[in-house]
Amino acid sequence: MKHQEILTNYLAGFIQELSNSGVEDVVISPGSRSTPLALLIADHPKLKYHINIDERSAAFFALGIAKQTRKPVALLCTSGTAAANYFPAIVEAKLARVPLIVLTADRPHELRDIGAPQAIDQIHLYGKHVKWFVEMALPEQEKEMIDYVRTTATRAVHFSMQAPAGPVHLNFPIREPLIPILEPSAFTNMDSQPAVAVLQGQAFLPSREMEKICDRLQNIEKGLIVCGVIDDPKFVAAVLPLSEALGYPIIADPLSQLRSGHISDNMIIDSYDAILKDLQTDQQLMPDVIIRFGGMPVSKPLTKYMKRLQHTEHYIIEEGNEWRDPIKAGTHMIYSNEVMFCSDLTDRLKEKRMSRWLEMWQELNQIARETVMHEINDIQELDEGKVVIELLKKMPENSHLFVGNSMPIRDVDTFFHANHSNIRVLANRGANGIDGVVSTALGVSLYGESSFLLIGDLSFFHDLNGLLAAKMHQLNITIIVINNNGGGIFSFLPQTSEPKHFEALFGTPTDLEFSNAVEMYNGNYKKVESWNDFHRSIEEAIERKGLNVIEVPTNREKNVEVHRKMWTQVSTEIERYFQGSHL
Amino acid sequence: MKHQEILTNYLAGFIQELSNSGVEDVVISPGSRSTPLALLIADHPKLKYHINIDERSAAFFALGIAKQTRKPVALLCTSGTAAANYFPAIVEAKLARVPLIVLTADRPHELRDIGAPQAIDQIHLYGKHVKWFVEMALPEQEKEMIDYVRTTATRAVHFSMQAPAGPVHLNFPIREPLIPILEPSAFTNMDSQPAVAVLQGQAFLPSREMEKICDRLQNIEKGLIVCGVIDDPKFVAAVLPLSEALGYPIIADPLSQLRSGHISDNMIIDSYDAILKDLQTDQQLMPDVIIRFGGMPVSKPLTKYMKRLQHTEHYIIEEGNEWRDPIKAGTHMIYSNEVMFCSDLTDRLKEKRMSRWLEMWQELNQIARETVMHEINDIQELDEGKVVIELLKKMPENSHLFVGNSMPIRDVDTFFHANHSNIRVLANRGANGIDGVVSTALGVSLYGESSFLLIGDLSFFHDLNGLLAAKMHQLNITIIVINNNGGGIFSFLPQTSEPKHFEALFGTPTDLEFSNAVEMYNGNYKKVESWNDFHRSIEEAIERKGLNVIEVPTNREKNVEVHRKMWTQVSTEIERYFQGSHL
Repeated sequence: MKHQEILTNYLAGFIQELSNSGVEDVVISPGSRSTPLALLIADHPKLKYHINIDERSAAFFALGIAKQTRKPVALLCTSGTAAANYFPAIVEAKLARVPLIVLTADRPHELRDIGAPQAIDQIHLYGKHVKWFVEMALPEQEKEMIDYVRTTATRAVHFSMQAPAGPVHLNFPIREPLIPILEPSAFTNMDSQPAVAVLQGQAFLPSREMEKICDRLQNIEKGLIVCGVIDDPKFVAAVLPLSEALGYPIIADPLSQLRSGHISDNMIIDSYDAILKDLQTDQQLMPDVIIRFGGMPVSKPLTKYMKRLQHTEHYIIEEGNEWRDPIKAGTHMIYSNEVMFCSDLTDRLKEKRMSRWLEMWQELNQIARETVMHEINDIQELDEGKVVIELLKKMPENSHLFVGNSMPIRDVDTFFHANHSNIRVLANRGANGIDGVVSTALGVSLYGESSFLLIGDLSFFHDLNGLLAAKMHQLNITIIVINNNGGGIFSFLPQTSEPKHFEALFGTPTDLEFSNAVEMYNGNYKKVESWNDFHRSIEEAIERKGLNVIEVPTNREKNVEVHRKMWTQVSTEIERYFQGSHL
Repeated sequence: MKHQEILTNYLAGFIQELSNSGVEDVVISPGSRSTPLALLIADHPKLKYHINIDERSAAFFALGIAKQTRKPVALLCTSGTAAANYFPAIVEAKLARVPLIVLTADRPHELRDIGAPQAIDQIHLYGKHVKWFVEMALPEQEKEMIDYVRTTATRAVHFSMQAPAGPVHLNFPIREPLIPILEPSAFTNMDSQPAVAVLQGQAFLPSREMEKICDRLQNIEKGLIVCGVIDDPKFVAAVLPLSEALGYPIIADPLSQLRSGHISDNMIIDSYDAILKDLQTDQQLMPDVIIRFGGMPVSKPLTKYMKRLQHTEHYIIEEGNEWRDPIKAGTHMIYSNEVMFCSDLTDRLKEKRMSRWLEMWQELNQIARETVMHEINDIQELDEGKVVIELLKKMPENSHLFVGNSMPIRDVDTFFHANHSNIRVLANRGANGIDGVVSTALGVSLYGESSFLLIGDLSFFHDLNGLLAAKMHQLNITIIVINNNGGGIFSFLPQTSEPKHFEALFGTPTDLEFSNAVEMYNGNYKKVESWNDFHRSIEEAIERKGLNVIEVPTNREKNVEVHRKMWTQVSTEIERYFQGSHL
């Protein structure tokens, strides 16, 4: 058999199997060594491919698609530093548990480590930051090798999804000539059933252990359910009944998907960030048990509060077999599927519990929320927190809101109150980087009905290249850039007490006029001057579709001042509450 | 002793030692965990720091400074994906042998692998792509630990320079609070002598081995010296006398620094790419020995030619203890310092050798060069190859020319003829990536007298973010963007024979109007329409200083056509030469 035939059959078998196992999208960056894989993917009848030239953006774009579709997405690039550019998104995917199938083309063995062009050591290129690495065999024709390449594809897709989900990396050595046979199509008579059927069990505790937990919780009135970063509609549907049965309010991080949607929201506490900033509340708000799900919540007041609670039982439910407890507050580490844990426990509980404890949280939440809203309403000038509230008013049903790290996610935590719009809130909270955010949001927008990105100026700058995807794939997204001209978060950190070098090292003003970049990518750009302006711009952007960038200029110092005043006011109101007749 | 004092003394000791060991420049990206290192570096009386927000660009920028200054450059970033963004430049630095000291801040041990924000596994983050990795101890006050941290700095700097030079990575766990003491300065009474004096020997062969080589070469008339990527003025000064003594012409890659400068150039063959494209010349151009220095030359005709030569002795001189022979042509691998090898051999040879062989190469070179120039002169429209020739006419003495990968470096190889201007030609030829090129060139320009970058549109796009450095640090550079709207090189590769999917996967036109981006970075932008326009724009750019981008629109198909016609013409002229009376 000729080289081209062997190459084609082997790689087509692999690609067919990716598709059979559930991969639908592939993000491809142009390159030479990867040509046979790229051409065959493009030729596959079912796979959709998306070109993204900058590999760093490409990988984040794939991450976004995988987040939105909750399906594994494949990535393909050529050999050399191209593959190294995937690294930031891979690190994020590993920690954020997003399934990616990373395919890198490589020189064959005889061209490695001898100074050949564009040849770097790609074996275990991403170290421990992928779940699985395979150095693929060179294309061969024997049935055994076709079985091998197909099974490897099945395994790769499955492993990427197995809890905790994450990236896998397959490195393909390919010899020249790099042209596969496209006519007739290699896929015409290919089996569309997976080579191996893979069935995945889920961890759940033995009945006697669940019974013990149930008995214990039935005896505890003062409990809290804390939901951090977790994105599973089944979980939302399972944790709410549990909360009602236990009478424990849910401290719901915006990334728990519990603040939006057609759900009963009286169990949802959304203003804990404001409430818990005030250390004086500790005495009244001392729970006997905390049940925690998902990655660590964003709120620093919340995490500090949980850390201060010395005598609270703290259950961490975690299917992913990791140890996510940076505050070292956990007293029980429970490795079980979160949904099954909730459902099982709810089934065992007799009826809904009402308690003074629950009421107090509900009342405090209302006070905090109303105070914040009152303060916010008074703000006439453009303000970072208020952007979240005003944006929420304008977002249509079934929107996606992607949130940048650093300040935006904190503002969303504080100001994105529970609501009945069906809005999915997403962010890169694996490693919390400010990199790749634009591309991830664009990946989300690919199949999203209505997509928004709230982002700071430094993070927007970091991934400006990502915008090319919006142009090339005619994506619809409205990007709100909070422009405080530099690193706003540092003004909240102790560094600010060190004025020497502060502005140069941390403020880092860039003075960029983003309208230029937006124009280059055929986007519509608007710098707003008032809230009316902001509302109108959002409406127009939704109407117009395509790439829309709305810049909200704010002031770093002013922002710190406004936020601090607000927390003082909330603190006063809470104090008044506790001094009143409510207790 | 308090935390802050211990932190300050420990880290200041490290930083002082970086400076003592010869580091002068540090590229810093803003971040929180790295604050104590950043503040102390900024506070050091001798170190110069340069802020670069996007860590991917930052690392390439450092690479550029290190290339230009031929000194190790330090890099600092915070924990998390920030560090992952360094990866492409680190991979390049390792293969290109550029000394970088990569400093990453990290969470301390108790905050690792437990879901803490912005905490990723940074142990051996860059795998085998750094020469040395150290997980630093937490700051301590004992003299032994201060000695440790200082010695580690000395070692890091030295190891980065030791042949083969390359990147080293030190990971610093740092506990909060992250503020060092700046008043009084920690550096006031610090010793400016290195903790340990490091003396480095160089490899050279025993006299009897050199004698043998000398005897052998004296008996061979038909020899060639091939100089690939090597950037050492001492080498230029050493290889020319050797070439004259042996009577062997030098096949000089543009990155050998042998095509420019105040050197006698009659031994330099610069048009081998054109000559060796013609397979018919093999018979006449069969050398008995090749002496090769440096990384693989760019020219594919040259590498193919060397690979075809079955009976040629092929000496590879290599101080870096690697095995750089992708064409597997080497018959002798000689691990010796290149300069010493040349000088020693020259000293042993009696006198200059003249030969018909040498004359023939000189004549062929002249024919090829003249034919190319003749063809080029006929071209009226804008052309990728001609850009090199026209640019060279306008570049001032002591310029730096940084060259992008893919097509520009090939055009420079073909059209950058030997000249007496003192122009240093640089490129990222470690992994030959199209990424990070803008930033590397800007790093070169930081201390360069007059800097130029010749780059293709995809590569320019890939590192557009790099331009922020030009704005923030008021750098002077003239960037010539060859805009063929996509991946021009693929039109020269076999992929082009597969029209299905070609334009989508390989052509990848982006249709970007770069003027917008250039304006955003306060640069001057000009799209030229004629050669007069081009000349004037270069003159104006040199005069104006700052960031200048000159775009030369070309056509991918036309470019292939023009180049092919040129090679046919050269081939005809060479055939005529061999048929003539010259032999």
